[in-house]
Amino acid sequence: MDPNFLQVFIPIAGLLAVGFAIYLARDVLSRDTGTQAMMDVSATINEGAVAFIKRQYTTIGLLALAGSVVIFVIISVLETASVADTSHVGVDIGIRTGGAFLLGAACSMTCGIIGMLVSVKANVRVAAAARRSLVEAVQVAMRGGAVSGFLVVALSLLGVWSIFAINGGLSGGDSTKDAPFLIVGYGFGASFVALFAQLGGGIYTKAADVGSDLVGKVEAGIPEDDPRNAGVIADLVGDNVGDCAGRGADLFESTAAENIGAMILGVGVYALALKAGWPNPTAWIFFPLVVRAFGLVSTIVAMFFIRGKETENPMNILNRGYWVTTILSALSLVLITYSMMNTNGATGDNGIPTWIYFLGAGCVGLATSVAFVYITQYYTAGTFRPVKEIAEASKTGPATNIIAGVSVGFETTAVTAITIGIALLASNWLGAHSGLGSVGGVFGTAVATMGMLMTTAYVLAMDTFGPITDNAGGIAEFSRAEAGARDITDRLDAVGNTTKALTKGYAIASASLAAFLLFSAYIDKVNLILGRQIAAGTRTAADGLMTSVNLANVNVFVAALIAAMLVYFFSSLAIRAVGTTAQAIIVEVRRQFREIPGIMDYTGRPDYARVVDITTRAALREMMLPGVVAVATPIIVGLLLGYEAVAGLLMVGTIAGVLLATVLNNSGGAWDNAKKYIESGQLLDENGNVLGKKSLAHQAGVVGDTVGDPFKDTAGPSLHVLVKLLATITLVMAPLFIR
Amino acid sequence: MDPNFLQVFIPIAGLLAVGFAIYLARDVLSRDTGTQAMMDVSATINEGAVAFIKRQYTTIGLLALAGSVVIFVIISVLETASVADTSHVGVDIGIRTGGAFLLGAACSMTCGIIGMLVSVKANVRVAAAARRSLVEAVQVAMRGGAVSGFLVVALSLLGVWSIFAINGGLSGGDSTKDAPFLIVGYGFGASFVALFAQLGGGIYTKAADVGSDLVGKVEAGIPEDDPRNAGVIADLVGDNVGDCAGRGADLFESTAAENIGAMILGVGVYALALKAGWPNPTAWIFFPLVVRAFGLVSTIVAMFFIRGKETENPMNILNRGYWVTTILSALSLVLITYSMMNTNGATGDNGIPTWIYFLGAGCVGLATSVAFVYITQYYTAGTFRPVKEIAEASKTGPATNIIAGVSVGFETTAVTAITIGIALLASNWLGAHSGLGSVGGVFGTAVATMGMLMTTAYVLAMDTFGPITDNAGGIAEFSRAEAGARDITDRLDAVGNTTKALTKGYAIASASLAAFLLFSAYIDKVNLILGRQIAAGTRTAADGLMTSVNLANVNVFVAALIAAMLVYFFSSLAIRAVGTTAQAIIVEVRRQFREIPGIMDYTGRPDYARVVDITTRAALREMMLPGVVAVATPIIVGLLLGYEAVAGLLMVGTIAGVLLATVLNNSGGAWDNAKKYIESGQLLDENGNVLGKKSLAHQAGVVGDTVGDPFKDTAGPSLHVLVKLLATITLVMAPLFIR
Repeated sequence: MDPNFLQVFIPIAGLLAVGFAIYLARDVLSRDTGTQAMMDVSATINEGAVAFIKRQYTTIGLLALAGSVVIFVIISVLETASVADTSHVGVDIGIRTGGAFLLGAACSMTCGIIGMLVSVKANVRVAAAARRSLVEAVQVAMRGGAVSGFLVVALSLLGVWSIFAINGGLSGGDSTKDAPFLIVGYGFGASFVALFAQLGGGIYTKAADVGSDLVGKVEAGIPEDDPRNAGVIADLVGDNVGDCAGRGADLFESTAAENIGAMILGVGVYALALKAGWPNPTAWIFFPLVVRAFGLVSTIVAMFFIRGKETENPMNILNRGYWVTTILSALSLVLITYSMMNTNGATGDNGIPTWIYFLGAGCVGLATSVAFVYITQYYTAGTFRPVKEIAEASKTGPATNIIAGVSVGFETTAVTAITIGIALLASNWLGAHSGLGSVGGVFGTAVATMGMLMTTAYVLAMDTFGPITDNAGGIAEFSRAEAGARDITDRLDAVGNTTKALTKGYAIASASLAAFLLFSAYIDKVNLILGRQIAAGTRTAADGLMTSVNLANVNVFVAALIAAMLVYFFSSLAIRAVGTTAQAIIVEVRRQFREIPGIMDYTGRPDYARVVDITTRAALREMMLPGVVAVATPIIVGLLLGYEAVAGLLMVGTIAGVLLATVLNNSGGAWDNAKKYIESGQLLDENGNVLGKKSLAHQAGVVGDTVGDPFKDTAGPSLHVLVKLLATITLVMAPLFIR
Repeated sequence: MDPNFLQVFIPIAGLLAVGFAIYLARDVLSRDTGTQAMMDVSATINEGAVAFIKRQYTTIGLLALAGSVVIFVIISVLETASVADTSHVGVDIGIRTGGAFLLGAACSMTCGIIGMLVSVKANVRVAAAARRSLVEAVQVAMRGGAVSGFLVVALSLLGVWSIFAINGGLSGGDSTKDAPFLIVGYGFGASFVALFAQLGGGIYTKAADVGSDLVGKVEAGIPEDDPRNAGVIADLVGDNVGDCAGRGADLFESTAAENIGAMILGVGVYALALKAGWPNPTAWIFFPLVVRAFGLVSTIVAMFFIRGKETENPMNILNRGYWVTTILSALSLVLITYSMMNTNGATGDNGIPTWIYFLGAGCVGLATSVAFVYITQYYTAGTFRPVKEIAEASKTGPATNIIAGVSVGFETTAVTAITIGIALLASNWLGAHSGLGSVGGVFGTAVATMGMLMTTAYVLAMDTFGPITDNAGGIAEFSRAEAGARDITDRLDAVGNTTKALTKGYAIASASLAAFLLFSAYIDKVNLILGRQIAAGTRTAADGLMTSVNLANVNVFVAALIAAMLVYFFSSLAIRAVGTTAQAIIVEVRRQFREIPGIMDYTGRPDYARVVDITTRAALREMMLPGVVAVATPIIVGLLLGYEAVAGLLMVGTIAGVLLATVLNNSGGAWDNAKKYIESGQLLDENGNVLGKKSLAHQAGVVGDTVGDPFKDTAGPSLHVLVKLLATITLVMAPLFIR
C-alpha cells in the first residue's frame, strides 16, 4: 500500500475514533436509568463529581496557564541566547513550545472531563441493566469505558498530528525533521495535567474510601456503601474522579509522550534513509502515528465482539475483545511495516528484509502487553499462590498479613524487570540487525513500544469498566436494589478489580519501554542544542556532543541517587495526603453520627454534600506539595548538576519509579483480593472450618486491604505519571541545563 | 612526623586494639554473674547460641571453602588465558585470590564467633550489675560490645595489611602498586560470610521474636519474655546471633572492603606522585590503613570516658564517648594528612596545600557520620514528629498505623540521599581542587569514607550494647529479678534501641560513600585487565579502555533494572523467610501449650531446646535462597551482558539498596518506638485521656512493631551486606565479564 495513504489515514482514524466515541456515548445515554432511588443517588454522585472536577480542573487549568507562560519565557530567552541571533527565532520556538504545552494540557483536561462525565452517567445505567441481564450490563459498562478509551487515544493522536502539521511536519525535508522536537511541549502539557489529575483524584478517591470504611465499617459497624454513612457518596464520587479521570489523564500522557519520543527517534532513521536514498524517508517519522491509527481501528472492530452468554464469566467476554484487538493489531503491523519501511532492497542480517526485523520488534511489544496481563493476574488473582499466601498469613493476624503482602509486592518486581529487560534486549537486537545499525537498535525499542500501545484504547476501556461497575454496585447497594441485580453487579465488580490491576501492569510496562525511548530522545535533543551552539560559535567544538551518560561521574551518580529518592519521597507525600484527608472525613462523619438525630434508624439524612466538599478541599490542597516536588526536582538538579546528570536522573528515576509502582500496585491488588478470598469462604482453619467474614483472619484481611488502598490507587498510579513527567519535563527544559 | 613511622603504626595499632579487646573481655568475664536463676537462664541462652553458631558457621565455612575453590579455578583459568603465557602467573594469581578469600572469610567468622560469645557472657553480668548501679551496667554492656567492635576493626586492618605485605606491598614500586588488586579476594571472603551470617542470624532473631510474640503475647495473653513461653529462649538467643554476630560481620566487611577500595584509588594517586617526583609516593596507598589505625586508638581512649552519674540519661554517657572519638579522630586526621601528603611544595587551587583539601574531605566524612546519628534519631526517636505521627495514626487502628509508618519510612530517604549527595559532591570537589585533578576527586571521596569510618569501632560497640542490654532485660524478666534491676535494664534497653538504629544509619551512609569508591576501583580493575590484554595482543587496542558507564547502552540499562529489582527480590525472600520460620515456631509453641501439662501454672517446664533447634534448622534452610540469588545475579548479568553492564548493576544496585535499606530500617525503628511511645502513656485521646497499654491504639502499635521487625532486623541489614557484596564480587570476578 502507498505509504502516503497510510499517512493520510492518521487523521481519518483519529476522527473515526472520535465519531465512534460519540456514538458509544449516545448509545449509553439512551439506556434505561432504573428505579427512582437509583436515579436519586446517581444524581447526587453526579453533583459531587461535577463539583470536584470543576474545582480541580479550574486549579489545574490555572497552573497549566502559569506553566505555559513560564515555559514560553524560559525557552524564548534560552533559545535566543543560545543561537545568538536577532531574528526572533528564539521567541518563535518559545511560542511554539508554550502553545504546544497549553494544547496538550487542554486535550488532557478534555479527555478527563468527558470520560468522567460519561462514566458517571454509565454507572446508573449499568445498575439498571443488571436488573435484567449480565451481558447487557457488561456491554453498557464497557461502552461507557470505551468512550474514555477512544477519546484519550484519538485526541492524543490528533493533537500530536496537528501540532506536527502546524510546525511544518507534513512538508518533508528539514521542517519534518525538526517538527518532532517542537511538539515535546505537548507531551509536557499532558504530563503536567496528568500529574495533578492523578494526584488530586487519587487522594480524593482513597481518602474517601479509607475514611468512610474506617468510620463506618470499623467504628459504627454498618456495611460498606450504607446510606447512613455520610462519607459514602464521597466514596462513590471518588471512583469516578480518581479511577476514571485520573487513569485517563495518565494514559493520555503515555500515548502522547510515546508518540513524540518515537517520532524523535524516527528522525534518526530519516537521516539514514535520506543518505541511503531510500524512497519516502519521512515515512520513518510518521510510522509511530500510523501504528497508533491502526490500533484504534482494531479496537473499534473489537468492540463488536463484546458479547456472550448470561452464564459466562464476564472476564471471558472482555478477554475475547482483547484478543481480537491484539490479533488485528498484529496483522495491521504486517501491513504497516511492509508498506512503510522501504529500504530500496537493502536488507538486514542474513538477507532478511529490514521490515521483517521491525515487524518482529512490534510483535515483541504486543507479546509484552499480553505477558503483563497474565503476570498481573498471577500475582493479584485469588486462584494463585501469592494471594492465597497472604490469606493464609491472615490467620495469625494483621501483622503477618502485612508482612506477607509486602513480601509479595517486592517479589513481583522480579518477573516485571525480567520481562521488560527481555523485551528491551530483544527489540534492540532486532533493530540493530535490521540493517540500520545502532540507530536501528533504539528504533527497534520504539517500534516495540508502539506495538505494545496499539491496544491502549481497549485496555483503557477495560480499566474504566472497573470504576463504572464499582459504582454500579454502590448504587445498587445504596438504592437497596433487588438481590439478583446486586449479585450481577458484585460479579462485575470483582472482574473490574482484575481489569483495573491489569491496566496498571500494562501502564508500568509501557512506561518502562517508553522511558528508554524518551531517554534516547533526550540525548538527541541535547545534541541538537549542543550542535547548534557549536555551529553558532557559542560553544567550542572540543566540548563535543553527548555520547554517553557516565554513571561514574559524581554529578551523574548524585543525580541518580536523588532520582531514586524522589520516587520514595513523592510516594510518601501522596500516601500521607490520603491519611490526612481521610482523617478529616472521619472527624466529620463522626460529628454527623453524633449531631444529626435519627441517622442510624434511617429517619435522619446525613449531610453527604458537606463530606464531599471537605474531601474536595483537602484533596486539592494535599495534591500541591507532591506535584510541586515532582516538577521542581528535575529542574533544580538540572540547574545545579547539568545536562548529563539530568540524563542519569531520568534513567534511574524511571527504573526506581517503575519498580516501586510495581510493588505498590501489586501488593495493593493482592491484599484486596486476599480479603475477597477470605470473604468468599475459601480460607479454612486447621480443622477444615471456614474462616469467613467477621473471623479474625477476615479482620486482618481488611487491614491489608486498607493499607493497600493508597498504595495501589494513589501512590502507584501517580508514580506512572511521575516517570513520564520526568521524561517530558527534561525534554522541554533541556536548554536550561546546558551551560 | 615521618610517614614511614605512620606506616609501621598500622600493625602496632591493630595489635594494640586486639590486646585491648582481650583486656575488656577479661574484665567483663571477671564480673559478678548474679543470682542462680540468672545464671541458669544465661546458661540456657549460651547453649542455644553456641548450638546455632556452631551449625551456622559450619555451613558457612563449607560454603566459603567451596567458594574459594571456585574462585581459584575461575581466576586461574581466566588469568592464564588472558595473559596467554605459560609461566603459571595465572595460577599464582588464582591462588592468591582464593587464599585471600579464605582468609577474609576466616577473619570474619572469628570476629562473629568471639563477639557473640563475649556478648552472651556479658548479658548476665549486665543484669547482675543492674541490681547495684546504672553506670556499672552501662560500663559492662559497653565493654562487652567493644570487644566485638575492636576485634572487627583490628582484624580487618591486620588482615588487609598482612595480605598486602604478603603480596609484596611493603616493598615499594610495582609490587606495592599491584598488591591492592590482589587483596580484593579478602573483601569478597568477608562479604560472603557476612551475607550468610546476617541472613541466617537475621532470620533466626526475627522469626523467634515475631513467632514467640504472636503465640505468647497475642494468642496466650502472657507477657513478653515470660518463662512459660517455649519460644522465649529462642528469642533471647536470637538477639545474640542476629544483632551481635550479624552486625559484626556486616561492619567487618565494610571496613575491609572500604580499606581495599581506598587503597586501589590510592594507586591512582601513587602513579601521579611517582610521575611528579613527590617524596614517598607509596604513602598514598597506605593512607587509608593509617587513618583506620588512628581511628582505633581514638576509640581506645574514648572507652575511658564512659562514666557518669547514676541519675544521668545513659544515652548521654554513650554520646560522651562518641564525641571523644570524633574529636580525637579529627585531630589525628590533621597529623596524618599533614605528614603523609607531601607534594613537594605543589599546591591545590588558590595556593592552599594539597593536604588541607584532603583534611577537609576527611572532616566531611566525620561530619556525615555525625549527621546520620542525628538524622536517625529524628526519624526514630519518640520525641520528634515522625514517631508521634505514627502513634497518632494508631488511634484509628492498625491500617492507619501501617500507612503512616510506610509514609515515614519513604520520607526518610530524602534527607538520607541529600546528605550523601552533599558529602560526595563536597569531598569530590575538595579532591578535584587539591592539585591532583580528576584522580584527586575520586580520592577525595575515598578520604571522606575513611574519615567517616574512623569511628567504626565505637559505633559498633554502641550497636552491640543494644542486644546485650536487650538480653539483660530478658534475663532480669525471666529470672524475676527485683524491680529496681528491671527498671535499670528497661532504661538501658530503650537506649539500646536508639543505638541500634544509629548504627544502621551509619552503616547505610558508609555503604553509599564506599559504593562510589568501590565502583571506581572496579573501573580501575577492568582497565588493568583490558590494558594487559591489549599489551599481550589478545585484544585490539582500538577497543580501548573503559572510560564511562553509559546508561544509554541497552545492556547497561537492563543491568541497572535488574539491579534495582534484585534489591526488592532479595528483601522479599528475606522477609518471607522470617514469616515461614516464625510459622514453624508458632506451631511448635502451640503444641507445647497443648501437650505439656502445667505450663501455664509454672509446674511444667516448656521444652525450650526444641524450639531453639527448630528455629536453627529453619533459619539455616531459609538463608540459602536469598544468599544464592545475591551471589548468582551479578555473575549471571556479567556473563550475559558484559563488564560495562556490571558497572551499571553495581551503581544502581547500590543506590536502590541503600535507599530501600533506609526505608526498611527507619520505618521499622519508628514503628518500634511509636509502640514504646504509646506504652509510656504519652498518647492522649481527644478528651485528654491516656491511650496506654491494652488500648486499641496500643494494639495497632504492636502490629506496626511486628511488621517492622523483619524490615529493620532482617531485610534492612542484609541489604547493607548485599550492596557491599555486589562491589566485592564484581571486583573479584571482573575477569569473567571481559570477553
